[in-house]
Amino acid sequence: MDSKHNINLTMLCDFYELTMGNGYYNKGMADKITYFDVFFRKNPDNGGFAIMAGLEQVVDYINGLHFDEEDIEYLRGRKLFSEGFLEYLKSFRFTGDIWAVPEGTPIFPGEPIMTVRAPAIQAQLIETYVLLELNHQSMIATKANRICRAAEGRVVLEFGSRRAQGIDGAVTGARAAFIGGCAGTACTVADEKYGVPAGGTMAHSWVQMFDTEYEAFKTYCEAYPTNATLLVDTYNSLKSGVPNAIRAFNEVLKPLGITKCGIRFDSGDMAYLTRKARVMLDEAGWPECKITVSNALDERLVTELLLQGAKIDSFGVGERLITSKSDPVFGGVYKLCAVENEDGSIVPKIKISENVGKITNPGFKKVYRFFDRETGMAEADYICLHDEVVDDTGTLEIRDPDARWKSKVMENFEAKELLVPVFKNGKQVYQLPELTEIRRNCAYQVSTLWPEVKRFDFPHQYYVDLSEKLMALKDSMLMTKRG
Amino acid sequence: MDSKHNINLTMLCDFYELTMGNGYYNKGMADKITYFDVFFRKNPDNGGFAIMAGLEQVVDYINGLHFDEEDIEYLRGRKLFSEGFLEYLKSFRFTGDIWAVPEGTPIFPGEPIMTVRAPAIQAQLIETYVLLELNHQSMIATKANRICRAAEGRVVLEFGSRRAQGIDGAVTGARAAFIGGCAGTACTVADEKYGVPAGGTMAHSWVQMFDTEYEAFKTYCEAYPTNATLLVDTYNSLKSGVPNAIRAFNEVLKPLGITKCGIRFDSGDMAYLTRKARVMLDEAGWPECKITVSNALDERLVTELLLQGAKIDSFGVGERLITSKSDPVFGGVYKLCAVENEDGSIVPKIKISENVGKITNPGFKKVYRFFDRETGMAEADYICLHDEVVDDTGTLEIRDPDARWKSKVMENFEAKELLVPVFKNGKQVYQLPELTEIRRNCAYQVSTLWPEVKRFDFPHQYYVDLSEKLMALKDSMLMTKRG
Repeated sequence: MDSKHNINLTMLCDFYELTMGNGYYNKGMADKITYFDVFFRKNPDNGGFAIMAGLEQVVDYINGLHFDEEDIEYLRGRKLFSEGFLEYLKSFRFTGDIWAVPEGTPIFPGEPIMTVRAPAIQAQLIETYVLLELNHQSMIATKANRICRAAEGRVVLEFGSRRAQGIDGAVTGARAAFIGGCAGTACTVADEKYGVPAGGTMAHSWVQMFDTEYEAFKTYCEAYPTNATLLVDTYNSLKSGVPNAIRAFNEVLKPLGITKCGIRFDSGDMAYLTRKARVMLDEAGWPECKITVSNALDERLVTELLLQGAKIDSFGVGERLITSKSDPVFGGVYKLCAVENEDGSIVPKIKISENVGKITNPGFKKVYRFFDRETGMAEADYICLHDEVVDDTGTLEIRDPDARWKSKVMENFEAKELLVPVFKNGKQVYQLPELTEIRRNCAYQVSTLWPEVKRFDFPHQYYVDLSEKLMALKDSMLMTKRG
Repeated sequence: MDSKHNINLTMLCDFYELTMGNGYYNKGMADKITYFDVFFRKNPDNGGFAIMAGLEQVVDYINGLHFDEEDIEYLRGRKLFSEGFLEYLKSFRFTGDIWAVPEGTPIFPGEPIMTVRAPAIQAQLIETYVLLELNHQSMIATKANRICRAAEGRVVLEFGSRRAQGIDGAVTGARAAFIGGCAGTACTVADEKYGVPAGGTMAHSWVQMFDTEYEAFKTYCEAYPTNATLLVDTYNSLKSGVPNAIRAFNEVLKPLGITKCGIRFDSGDMAYLTRKARVMLDEAGWPECKITVSNALDERLVTELLLQGAKIDSFGVGERLITSKSDPVFGGVYKLCAVENEDGSIVPKIKISENVGKITNPGFKKVYRFFDRETGMAEADYICLHDEVVDDTGTLEIRDPDARWKSKVMENFEAKELLVPVFKNGKQVYQLPELTEIRRNCAYQVSTLWPEVKRFDFPHQYYVDLSEKLMALKDSMLMTKRG
């Protein structure tokens, strides 16, 4: 195994996190308590929402934070860090608090999806990995969810390892795709390590290895009679592939009484080919034969193929899912929102920017999701300061922070806190759910969103509002704060 | 550390590679010698070429191929594999031959960049990882090379870890970006493990941690007087950031006789801000102060900023490099091209497709690159069968395989084989070059390409021709082979 692959993830940090850490340490600010929010600014593919994923890997990372002797040696060799700081790193552990949105939950731009409260050096050091993991997996879970919704209940399989951006692109990518709704993956290790069901049958090379296509199919049916999905496009799909598949089914499976089988197309026009193949299979007495397609699929093409009456039971989705090709960056950021004085009082912080969209929400905050008690549907998210409490037994007027004349009165609603405690004083207090439970949670939570929010094109913009108190705080800081 | 991160890369395979392997094993075809080519079909971003990268990781992977007891147990649990096959996997090692293009070399669509000759099960099993690694790193090296060429000699730094698609997206991504021409990275572990120079100074949070921007800058200059690059856009870049930076330089650096320093913009209009800042810095007596910018940069924006007279010394490039955002999939494929009979004779194989572009070149092949002996420039690549020898002391007529009326007579040329032996009978025979040597090789090899090939828009299509013998073989197989 590649020894370099086994890196200490603690060292997967941006170098400035270490130079800043050294600066805080030498300035006596090591124990200064800071608050950082993770949030994102734009839904992938201009959709109506995203799906939270990657928390389990962040938890593992936080639990494992440490510097090895060789890491310290490397840093010493850079001749930038004080011996005191290097000594401090030797016993470095995470001692802070973390709140986060559970995996599989729909999330919206601008709201904290994770809040970190920790001494400055610690909170700063984890920025890169926390973002990397949440950005990557949330992006893939979101994309998978879009494709699965387009497939309208049909099976969607993740086939993209070979086009993934690196090892974890494939492996945790397959995990995230499963959360978003995929039924399985081609990636073996994602099954072994995470329990994402892995499957697959044959490549073109299998067909080419035999003297004839028929022999290749027959051999495969003999080897895997209960799991025979034959790839029919190596030579000529309709003239050779499908007839040879039917012949192999007839000669090998039929005598065994097996009626379940499959064919797969990996090229050609999938609307035309699958309609033709369906007729051929049905007429030959193989109505239960499933048709899988796999070629440059994403939610757009899946939608169009189904509109055109393609006869598809299962979609194998590769590069456009595993890289989120149409929008391959999930722009989550990690921003300081407050610091604590020694007396425990919290001082909100804001970052102002020439780009208005980059201005942050100050203060230690929490987020509620409001569900209508009658329909069970999610109506709005509500960001407020940590010590505000929403009373959901009465009514509440909420206001769009960007268009303040737009308001809405919530009534008969249930307010649920979106973020849950994950670490308290460095100790994990959150029980990580099973992956299948996360996937179920995702399907359920997405079902609480109105169809208008789920539309691919110009979806309704779900409300994410600020409390009056938070808005007043932000206004006052914007008006006065000029560095 | 995340224990799940430490996976056995051998298990990072598509499941069908195992089901096919089991099929070959049980059919007595385990030792059947096969030949597979890796090639790609389209240059990223419609450019004129790509850059080969990722070979070092593939070599490490091949050397480490093995199945652990827990892997065998997992596979046994799937109830698809014969005990004989599982027993075979216990002592599984790679015993074949591999030829590949050295890292940093320009590569073109359609030509083999790696050829694997190995027993069927082995050759099939490595498909996914080999493709994943070469696809990912070649894509990033190619993108980095584009951005560095746009920067025309200015420093380009890779800053994208937090937006990378997983851990290796960041780490081997930083390695590939360095090969393509980046001067360094923000990713600490890429320095520690691969020697990609890591650097960085401060985030907005540093500035926000102090009562005033000036105090933040002053503290940083005191901590790192010889390495002070100040981030000036936390509040107001020109009214507050740059003046405070100048004041900190004057009060901390000047008394120390230090003239080298820097500022960084992370938002706002970078053409306007850098021109204004350059004047302010020069007038304040800081002509050696370098200006770095970092915000949504890629080769297009870099080109435009320079055309508009932006005063930039250094570009920090993030998400658009580390994900190759404008074209995030490098579509390398792995295709069977021949099998060997027991007498050692080679039987070429072809894959025909409804999509003409997906038809493969049959046979065991090699590739020459022809350089003009006078100019030293690369003129064409030439794919021929492995036993053909090009005599570069005379002339040679080459022909475009897609437009056969187009031919060109090579004369006064040097023919260099593009692929080198990497493994022979499972033993590594290739000495992996140092990363800095790969980077130098890349810069040199790219300099042998004509500017017409390097243009971003509608570049000249570099010639990749087939030998007469190979073309005749392909023609005859296309005409007769119908499964």
